[in-house]
Amino acid sequence: MSEVSKGLENVFIKTTSLTYIDGEAGILRYGGYDINDLVENCEYEEIIHLMLFGDLPSASQLQKIKEKTNESYNVPYQVFEVLEKLPHDADAVGMLETAFSMLSSFYNYPWKKDENKWRAIEIIAKTSTLVSNIYRIKEGMKPRLPEPSDSYARTFLETAFSRRPSDEEVKAMNATLIIYADHEVPASTTAALVTASTLSDMYSCMVSALAALKGPLHGGAAEATFEQLKEIGDQSKVEEWFDKKIIKEKNRLMGFGHRVYKTYDPRAKIFKKYAEEIAKTPEAKKYLRIATKLEELGIKHFAEKRIYPNVDFYSGIVFYSLGFPEYMYTTLFALSRVLGWLAHIIEYVEEQHRLIRPRALYVGPIKRDFVPLKYRE
Amino acid sequence: MSEVSKGLENVFIKTTSLTYIDGEAGILRYGGYDINDLVENCEYEEIIHLMLFGDLPSASQLQKIKEKTNESYNVPYQVFEVLEKLPHDADAVGMLETAFSMLSSFYNYPWKKDENKWRAIEIIAKTSTLVSNIYRIKEGMKPRLPEPSDSYARTFLETAFSRRPSDEEVKAMNATLIIYADHEVPASTTAALVTASTLSDMYSCMVSALAALKGPLHGGAAEATFEQLKEIGDQSKVEEWFDKKIIKEKNRLMGFGHRVYKTYDPRAKIFKKYAEEIAKTPEAKKYLRIATKLEELGIKHFAEKRIYPNVDFYSGIVFYSLGFPEYMYTTLFALSRVLGWLAHIIEYVEEQHRLIRPRALYVGPIKRDFVPLKYRE
Repeated sequence: MSEVSKGLENVFIKTTSLTYIDGEAGILRYGGYDINDLVENCEYEEIIHLMLFGDLPSASQLQKIKEKTNESYNVPYQVFEVLEKLPHDADAVGMLETAFSMLSSFYNYPWKKDENKWRAIEIIAKTSTLVSNIYRIKEGMKPRLPEPSDSYARTFLETAFSRRPSDEEVKAMNATLIIYADHEVPASTTAALVTASTLSDMYSCMVSALAALKGPLHGGAAEATFEQLKEIGDQSKVEEWFDKKIIKEKNRLMGFGHRVYKTYDPRAKIFKKYAEEIAKTPEAKKYLRIATKLEELGIKHFAEKRIYPNVDFYSGIVFYSLGFPEYMYTTLFALSRVLGWLAHIIEYVEEQHRLIRPRALYVGPIKRDFVPLKYRE
Repeated sequence: MSEVSKGLENVFIKTTSLTYIDGEAGILRYGGYDINDLVENCEYEEIIHLMLFGDLPSASQLQKIKEKTNESYNVPYQVFEVLEKLPHDADAVGMLETAFSMLSSFYNYPWKKDENKWRAIEIIAKTSTLVSNIYRIKEGMKPRLPEPSDSYARTFLETAFSRRPSDEEVKAMNATLIIYADHEVPASTTAALVTASTLSDMYSCMVSALAALKGPLHGGAAEATFEQLKEIGDQSKVEEWFDKKIIKEKNRLMGFGHRVYKTYDPRAKIFKKYAEEIAKTPEAKKYLRIATKLEELGIKHFAEKRIYPNVDFYSGIVFYSLGFPEYMYTTLFALSRVLGWLAHIIEYVEEQHRLIRPRALYVGPIKRDFVPLKYRE
């Protein structure tokens, strides 16, 4: 009898041409292109093309992606009405889950080879509308529809904050979108794949992914890491805090360690660079100093265990500097990851579709005789 | 390098003490008790206890389950408001998905060993409220909260139809609730497990399951089977239809065949019995006659291929006779299956928890040199 594959560890659920990870060398590539090159040189819209169509776009292909996102930002007003009705302390990812679930009733398209990728871009555009407006609603602002611009990142920030963002802010937002865009098949992507395998609609696949991302073991690490910086409070207290919390009390150092990377997560280095560029206010600079010191101590202490800073270690400082409160961090992750979720389910349904139906190993009583209620103790 | 486990076929994702299937012998047992004994002798509330607490309840334990369901039927009014706002042709399962997603914002409890099972019963009660009201809303009736009664099945029918159901109707409804309650780990249950593995809240796990159930390859077979009976239209036309559609055109015979059962699905036999008891109107009797004849031809033709009637072959006639339109059939499946989803995720989180994180096998270009936009063709 076969054994149980706990957590599906080392089970290959699909093939992919999207993301290549070398956890030993600290390499991450999308479609064969190094993540550093992509973040440094590309707009997020180019990554959308790379992930969905297999290569970086030409200028005219890029233009088409931008036209499609620009014309797809609309969302039915009923969705905003509902988001405004949810409890004030509703989880931001949960709000996005509800919004997507509603959209699956408004746009319930069947899978169709020539249309899937363009539907995916519609969903990516509407995610920008939803995430920016979840922020607005939670901050007590009126929802507003995005205005098209030359950049997905720019439109997103402008919709959220009702002001024209600086070029530097757009660049940092663009970088976070690219960095979080995909990372193979974590639980959220797996949930989307299982759902796609029944040929459920794309919005419902996103709903499944968000439901999984909501869990504290998956999303939420960037938020928890930033909480840690706040708890430390000042650069001068890092050593004392580290000795007490991490060494003596053996708490987990948030933002360190990764199941796949056994060295510096390449995404952490990129986020650090953007954090250094964008942290302008005294508060942001304070958090950056705390993080830098904490990183130094963490590496000194954990490097021999091959535990290094991961993607979430500096991302919070970038989000903070952009003006987002902590409750938005996981939702900002989702804003970007929607691309990876969509690219994976399209790859699966179009090229390697099979209904996902594992088995459970029965270990209970094989046969029990029925006893009527009145004779049970 | 490992191979891809397509569709996770024959991969054991967990152990279970809930459901035992012998597909060769046509045996289905919950917790070791034969499905026939359970349907014949039990109320659905007894199965709730069996699935969540490991054995059939004593009289006083059963009373506690009933008290808990009766006091948990309430649902925030905002949820009804939203359901009323969705498009008129919204998918009923999609409506339930949206409602559960909203509830995850209203009741976002962390996992807690002593509370999980009672939270699950709350969810089961609220599912009755939601499913009955999805029917009401789609039929243009005003939503209403259920009134407690001595029976979960009775309260459900009474809420949906605003009239006291007959004992026979309650018995048939109770039977459908038990028959569909669990069937190991199909795609919907797997989606719930992946989501639970991140310790996401229970409602979000149900959302994931519903998103997967929505897909045409999973839920929807009972509806499609009943459509088939309507298409045939009369008993006298079964042979002609079968010759043309199934033998000549080689269409799939809906309601026949199952990945696990290689003989008569034991649930099909039970549904047939209830269909015979409850089909009272001339129309219902007509569908029953068509189905009986179709079953005869199907078995004659397919038995040597080990293809037999499955659970969905007669369930539609039971649903029809109870007064439900076809668009409700998959949602009625969900109403019952919520128990299996919950029992499986609780078993997983409490006894064998591990974050579900499979791998994808990279088959794309290993390394490509970056080319700036202006040099791309």
